[in-house]
Amino acid sequence: MKLPGQGDFESSDAHENARSEEPDSGLGPGPGLNRPSGIHIGESQGSKDPLLFIQLNELLGWPQALEWRETGRWLLFEEKLDMGAGRWSAPHVPTLELPSLQKLRSLLAEGIVLLDCQAQSLLELVEQVVSGESLSPELRGQLQALLLQRPQHHIRTMGIRPCRESSAFRKASRDEDAPLKHRNPLRQKLPAGAEAAAVLAGELGFLEQPLGAFVRLRNPIVLEPLTEVILPSRFFCLLLGPPTLGRSYHEMGRAAAVLLSDPQFQWSVRRASHLRDLLAALDAFLQEVTALPPGRWDRTARIPPPKYLPSQHKRLPSKLQEVTSLSRQNGALAEDKHHHGPHTPIPELQRTGRLFGGLIQDVRRKACWYTSDFLDALHPQCLSAVFYIYLATVTNAITFGGLLGDATEGAQGVLESFLGTAVAGAAFCLMAGQPLTILSSTGPVLVFERLLFSFSRDYSLDYLPFRLWVGIWVAAFCLALVATEASLLVRYFTRFTEEGFCALISLIFIYDAVGKMLNLIRAYPIQRPGSSAYGCFCQYPGTGGNASEWTSAKLKDTEDILSVSGLVNASFLPPSECIQQGGHLRGPSCHTMPDIAFFSLLLFFTSFLCAIALKHVKNSRFFPSVVRKVLGDFSSVLAILLGCGLDAFLGLATPKLLVPTEFKPTLPGRGWLVSPFGANPWWLSVAAALPALLLSILIFMDQQITAVILNRAEYRLQKGAGFHLDLFCVAVLMLFTSALGLPWYVSATVISLAHIDSLRRESNACVPGEAPNFLGIREQRLTGLVVFILTGVSIFLAPVLKFIPMPVLYGIFLYMGVAALSSIQFVKRVQLLLMPRKHQPDMLFLRHVPLSRVHLFTAIQLACLGLLWLLGLVAIRKALEWVFSPQELLWLDELMPEEEETIPENRSEPEHLFSGNDSEDSELMYQPKAPEINISVN
Amino acid sequence: MKLPGQGDFESSDAHENARSEEPDSGLGPGPGLNRPSGIHIGESQGSKDPLLFIQLNELLGWPQALEWRETGRWLLFEEKLDMGAGRWSAPHVPTLELPSLQKLRSLLAEGIVLLDCQAQSLLELVEQVVSGESLSPELRGQLQALLLQRPQHHIRTMGIRPCRESSAFRKASRDEDAPLKHRNPLRQKLPAGAEAAAVLAGELGFLEQPLGAFVRLRNPIVLEPLTEVILPSRFFCLLLGPPTLGRSYHEMGRAAAVLLSDPQFQWSVRRASHLRDLLAALDAFLQEVTALPPGRWDRTARIPPPKYLPSQHKRLPSKLQEVTSLSRQNGALAEDKHHHGPHTPIPELQRTGRLFGGLIQDVRRKACWYTSDFLDALHPQCLSAVFYIYLATVTNAITFGGLLGDATEGAQGVLESFLGTAVAGAAFCLMAGQPLTILSSTGPVLVFERLLFSFSRDYSLDYLPFRLWVGIWVAAFCLALVATEASLLVRYFTRFTEEGFCALISLIFIYDAVGKMLNLIRAYPIQRPGSSAYGCFCQYPGTGGNASEWTSAKLKDTEDILSVSGLVNASFLPPSECIQQGGHLRGPSCHTMPDIAFFSLLLFFTSFLCAIALKHVKNSRFFPSVVRKVLGDFSSVLAILLGCGLDAFLGLATPKLLVPTEFKPTLPGRGWLVSPFGANPWWLSVAAALPALLLSILIFMDQQITAVILNRAEYRLQKGAGFHLDLFCVAVLMLFTSALGLPWYVSATVISLAHIDSLRRESNACVPGEAPNFLGIREQRLTGLVVFILTGVSIFLAPVLKFIPMPVLYGIFLYMGVAALSSIQFVKRVQLLLMPRKHQPDMLFLRHVPLSRVHLFTAIQLACLGLLWLLGLVAIRKALEWVFSPQELLWLDELMPEEEETIPENRSEPEHLFSGNDSEDSELMYQPKAPEINISVN
Repeated sequence: MKLPGQGDFESSDAHENARSEEPDSGLGPGPGLNRPSGIHIGESQGSKDPLLFIQLNELLGWPQALEWRETGRWLLFEEKLDMGAGRWSAPHVPTLELPSLQKLRSLLAEGIVLLDCQAQSLLELVEQVVSGESLSPELRGQLQALLLQRPQHHIRTMGIRPCRESSAFRKASRDEDAPLKHRNPLRQKLPAGAEAAAVLAGELGFLEQPLGAFVRLRNPIVLEPLTEVILPSRFFCLLLGPPTLGRSYHEMGRAAAVLLSDPQFQWSVRRASHLRDLLAALDAFLQEVTALPPGRWDRTARIPPPKYLPSQHKRLPSKLQEVTSLSRQNGALAEDKHHHGPHTPIPELQRTGRLFGGLIQDVRRKACWYTSDFLDALHPQCLSAVFYIYLATVTNAITFGGLLGDATEGAQGVLESFLGTAVAGAAFCLMAGQPLTILSSTGPVLVFERLLFSFSRDYSLDYLPFRLWVGIWVAAFCLALVATEASLLVRYFTRFTEEGFCALISLIFIYDAVGKMLNLIRAYPIQRPGSSAYGCFCQYPGTGGNASEWTSAKLKDTEDILSVSGLVNASFLPPSECIQQGGHLRGPSCHTMPDIAFFSLLLFFTSFLCAIALKHVKNSRFFPSVVRKVLGDFSSVLAILLGCGLDAFLGLATPKLLVPTEFKPTLPGRGWLVSPFGANPWWLSVAAALPALLLSILIFMDQQITAVILNRAEYRLQKGAGFHLDLFCVAVLMLFTSALGLPWYVSATVISLAHIDSLRRESNACVPGEAPNFLGIREQRLTGLVVFILTGVSIFLAPVLKFIPMPVLYGIFLYMGVAALSSIQFVKRVQLLLMPRKHQPDMLFLRHVPLSRVHLFTAIQLACLGLLWLLGLVAIRKALEWVFSPQELLWLDELMPEEEETIPENRSEPEHLFSGNDSEDSELMYQPKAPEINISVN
Repeated sequence: MKLPGQGDFESSDAHENARSEEPDSGLGPGPGLNRPSGIHIGESQGSKDPLLFIQLNELLGWPQALEWRETGRWLLFEEKLDMGAGRWSAPHVPTLELPSLQKLRSLLAEGIVLLDCQAQSLLELVEQVVSGESLSPELRGQLQALLLQRPQHHIRTMGIRPCRESSAFRKASRDEDAPLKHRNPLRQKLPAGAEAAAVLAGELGFLEQPLGAFVRLRNPIVLEPLTEVILPSRFFCLLLGPPTLGRSYHEMGRAAAVLLSDPQFQWSVRRASHLRDLLAALDAFLQEVTALPPGRWDRTARIPPPKYLPSQHKRLPSKLQEVTSLSRQNGALAEDKHHHGPHTPIPELQRTGRLFGGLIQDVRRKACWYTSDFLDALHPQCLSAVFYIYLATVTNAITFGGLLGDATEGAQGVLESFLGTAVAGAAFCLMAGQPLTILSSTGPVLVFERLLFSFSRDYSLDYLPFRLWVGIWVAAFCLALVATEASLLVRYFTRFTEEGFCALISLIFIYDAVGKMLNLIRAYPIQRPGSSAYGCFCQYPGTGGNASEWTSAKLKDTEDILSVSGLVNASFLPPSECIQQGGHLRGPSCHTMPDIAFFSLLLFFTSFLCAIALKHVKNSRFFPSVVRKVLGDFSSVLAILLGCGLDAFLGLATPKLLVPTEFKPTLPGRGWLVSPFGANPWWLSVAAALPALLLSILIFMDQQITAVILNRAEYRLQKGAGFHLDLFCVAVLMLFTSALGLPWYVSATVISLAHIDSLRRESNACVPGEAPNFLGIREQRLTGLVVFILTGVSIFLAPVLKFIPMPVLYGIFLYMGVAALSSIQFVKRVQLLLMPRKHQPDMLFLRHVPLSRVHLFTAIQLACLGLLWLLGLVAIRKALEWVFSPQELLWLDELMPEEEETIPENRSEPEHLFSGNDSEDSELMYQPKAPEINISVN
């Protein structure tokens, strides 16, 4: 059901566009298409047209001081020289006037067109061009001299500071130009093999008639002084004429440059063998131009580059498209929508039908990559990824350690969190099917652990042994799931399920953070005026003898009111000192800690808001990109540091993170190994199967949803997934951590996504206005391993960690929850409920699904979340098929595996007759999907 | 130096565009322009073409279920029916395909064109159209029946709720259509006299050749079922043809509709007398189309309507523009830039040369408007303006009253603030030259008052009498300024001065708020662990007898630790009760108030952030516009309420606003009238002239800058300004307030702008996608008067006001300062210092002035501010003329009166040769200037 070449396009990036732009052969090209017939789509797929840098040199200063000046340049977009300001404009979508295109057409039609010119230098080229014109010899000489004149370029080198640069620009003599060219930062950005095109346009007083020339060089040569970047030039276009009113030659020059920058035109003109091919390509361009009416759009407004370029498969010859479009419009639509979804059939999810068949296949598949999993990590980028993920992991270990200690009232703590993270994480990285996932404590498991602890406390059970048995059962259930290839169920995890789960996790984060903060405030009551908890002093234990000695020794510096009052055996020593001296604190306010509650609230909000603000810095206009990246990526670390600094500055006794001073379990009196029964009756080891069942489902969901997200098609992973192997590893580690009383771990969506993001390979050659091209992920095991080894070493960071106030950690937790929530479509749909219809953003699904149906879908999802019907999410999604049509579900969610086949059949739906609009949907919206659940740790 | 018609255009609004669109006569129209020659620009200025509502009905459902359905509509912008979702898209800039325009052209050229058709009904019209076609009688009948078929409209009435509406849409039978049309909300939005145009397009299987018709009705008739809105139709366009691949007739229909929505095309086609006129208008449209290259822009992306439509004077016949443009490019540019500036010559600022000549002229000018100043207020809008400005004024009176009380340590207070605001404000409203300004205490005067108070305290002077003399001198100086017509100096207040002054005021606000907050924290020290200020008890005065009775009576409920310790004459009673009982507080912590400092900080930040957040709600997508407006406009009131609620909920003893309980001066022991000498030596009344000189300059600046901003051309005030009269009133009120010991008042920029904004008259008929048209300001004296009367009455609000915590007021002050700062260009330029070049926004001045020069300008302004060279601002601006060229100043600032004449002469500047780019500046940036200093009270 794919349009020809579409698949190729999808996996290609912008530089490779030229490949997929190969237009189709003779199958009815439009009126002006001049492709050499007989070329098949596949035929020239191997040849890739190089990127073209186009420069417009304009002749200015007539008649006093003729000079060429570069006034525009094009790669993908236009950059224009703002001459008054002496700066290049930001890249923008070029806008043209139709008359200038038409004038250009007639100028070219009457002018000289040299295709496959053999000139070896600028001089030869100019001679050939000038000799072709019917001019007097004198004029010819003048013209030749003029064309050889060195143009003024506006080159901005990086090193020059802004205030000097302007005068540098003004004074820049022509001789200083050449070295500047070598330092031109644009040069470094262009990919290897890029070619140049020079367009020369202007008005020349001594010409009596227009003079146009278009040259394609057989072998591109460096036309030294013409272009600001030293590149071999392939095209040369000359547009001169007698002075006109306005700047019509400037506009014609721009039109020529924009034409050359169009991939379709460029493709044609590189292959043109005759003037008529050139003109036909121009006409084809004209046919496809987007026209904006003059009264409603200002041509001089600069349109910023769209985030995604329109895909070139839309520009196939129109008749071909028409033939196919009628019959498969909805199919293609489904295809299109579906193609970008995360659920392109994954080969790892084929059922083998044998016990442990999936696991064995996983191991077999991953084994052959094992060596490369370490060799592929030898890149500097991995170092920075390690640093970044290490900080995120440690932050997470600290916060979750703190929460775990609170939840289990000290049965486990930060030490267990660090140790467990290090050992389990490292082991997982070495064995797992998808070593890019980062194992971590997660919200749902923490909530489960808290429930388990409350239960065992309420029934006076021995917690850790009970927990051990739960762990044993979970491992057993998980192994059973591995054996039966239950991971194949992930095919049923559509957006509905993923986002429901993600929203749940996020809400747990938020609920936990706020709840903890409220508990903290309750622990440090606020003193209201007139409250009875007022007054305190220190009473000395004895009544006679050494009392006077005691007071005189210790109270010299404080005003001795008490002795004035005749109370020699009492003092106003601060509580800590009083107890140290053996005194007793007397008075109701002795044990209240004023100011702590509000200061904790301040710390909480400060760290939360600071983390959010720093995160936003990443997309702001301020600061150089390096600074922005650091501030954005390390926002939570910086927020924690800020909170600690504030706390240390004021020196208040805020509750701090509890860290062990020595390497032994947090719970006093237990060894590392948990005894299998402890004080519990024997049958409890069997009864533990019930909570274990729940936890197994939870862990299965948590682990597999993360795995599905990480193995999405848009990451273009080469080494395949390992759903069964991953679950197997989690099961084994479950056993291990339960036996040692360490926290339980599953793959954490948040940090894993950050990990995969920090390992993106992107093209360096980044053309102005274009986003960097995504090339893939550095798939390896080493970064994760090093991160967890470092985490293990961090156990000895205790002396530092104990300065972290708990409210700061709660603030970071709140931030993590809010950040995760705000990135999912579900939340965007919830926001729609609050928006009046006319202010709603132009989201693709709103163009296709009635608003009331969107709201209904959202309401059902909300209800699911509200009732914590997490486990039923898949079943409900299935049930939605009775409520929603497949088309509606296609736009709002994705299709279930079975549905996919059924869709193109039911063409009788009335909707189809009127869905012609669909073809007009913005392609900008068919964007390669960014990770949907863009939870970020930082 | 104006382009023809430009002046008219500038003052016209979008609905009146048609007037200024009148193209020029024969002076060389472009290739396809077909205006009846001989029509002069002025000739048809009186006739204004009505607004055209264009609807596209498309024939869908071939072959099974033929039906017409409305799929698009146009007023200024395009709205498209998203059929899947059953909703109208947001208005957007229409995009066209060139081929469809060309196909439309050939279809019209071969089809039937009836100009001035006399049909009286749809039936007649259809008969005329059908009879013109060469069809078989049978086909003709079929076609006629089809054309008379009632189309399906998608009308959304307001009352229907979203979830029902979708099904309503589906079931809406044809008979139910008519009543829906009457309820169509679009109808109410269209201005009186609007006309309709119906475009019918589609594919019809039984046709063998395309069938095109264009009809202009001599007398527009209501073509009942055709259009969704019941309007008389002027145009009718029919585009039918045999089935094609794709939806080419849909696109042709859209092209016809977009053409009709173009003002220029519409103008021509209303006056066309022959088919060739129609085609020529189409060609003229094609010439002016903006073309976007296909590879760089996706046609299906919906471009939101630009904030300002391109002005139509750019679309004058091109040759005319070219003739003038070469010679006056820079002049016109200056004109263009200057025209929108706030400094169009103001008639009120002509020198008379006589003593008090300006004042007399002011009085004469305002006198004739005096009656209308009250009659013009009889409009419901004034009521809401009164409510809004009353709340702002009271908030201001409260905050400034609080600050004033602090600054003068109780010599003045909230009562004086209320009384003074009410009396002075009301008097000013009755007498002033510009009654729209709201008198208020302002930052600079407050700072001056504080300095004056510190001075008189340091030298043990009697403050209020000293202040009286300062006031007398200020009044004298101001009268001298009025007499000498010094207000003419306001012509020298360019943006440089205005923004410098505004930044100063804002910084004073911020500095004051933060400083006050820090003082408050210092007053309530934080208890650090181990600090010595610890412990407190209550000691009973006597030593024997009644002590036991006292303790037993009062301490029953508290744990009697002290008596246990054998101290019968001491207790832990709370301080207030202890003192009430005649006891003495003993211990260092008896007078500390814990928790207050941090809670105050929390209140401070909460009210600040809440006010900012609420302000942003106004421009968010959430909530209906009424709710958003209320939340945004009353953000500071709501923030204060929230702060008070929080404070009341916790019931802590935060410092509250001090309000008098009875109507007498805050300073104990003084009467209302300040005695002229008090305890001061007589010569102090002479010495007071020195500070009075400073204050006079301050007040002159403060008053006149506000007046200049309020009298800007963009507010289109009809009743003129009164700079001299205003200053005279301020001088008289200075005397009055000094004599009574009330605060000093000048016009406050902030509230005055809010006042003028709340009195904007705007056109109701608001076409989708178009901003409401500004018609003027309701200039009157009544709203201000009522506001101040209400403020006077509010003196009796004391019992309510005393619940307002001071930190909340400080937070609001911080917000006012930050909001004022963030709206001025100066701050935007300061932000540029932090932005890397490529991320800088596309601001107009950055296109014309080198970045280093912009930075230099900013740095000079920063230096001025840093050194508080406020008084020198005008002189420095003058000195800048040696540093910057007039062109640079023109873009960054505005021209001084003298400079304006000199600019067009110095054409020898090299810049001019290369400034052709200028003509391409986005007109979107030449927007009617919004108030530059958009300080908002809320």
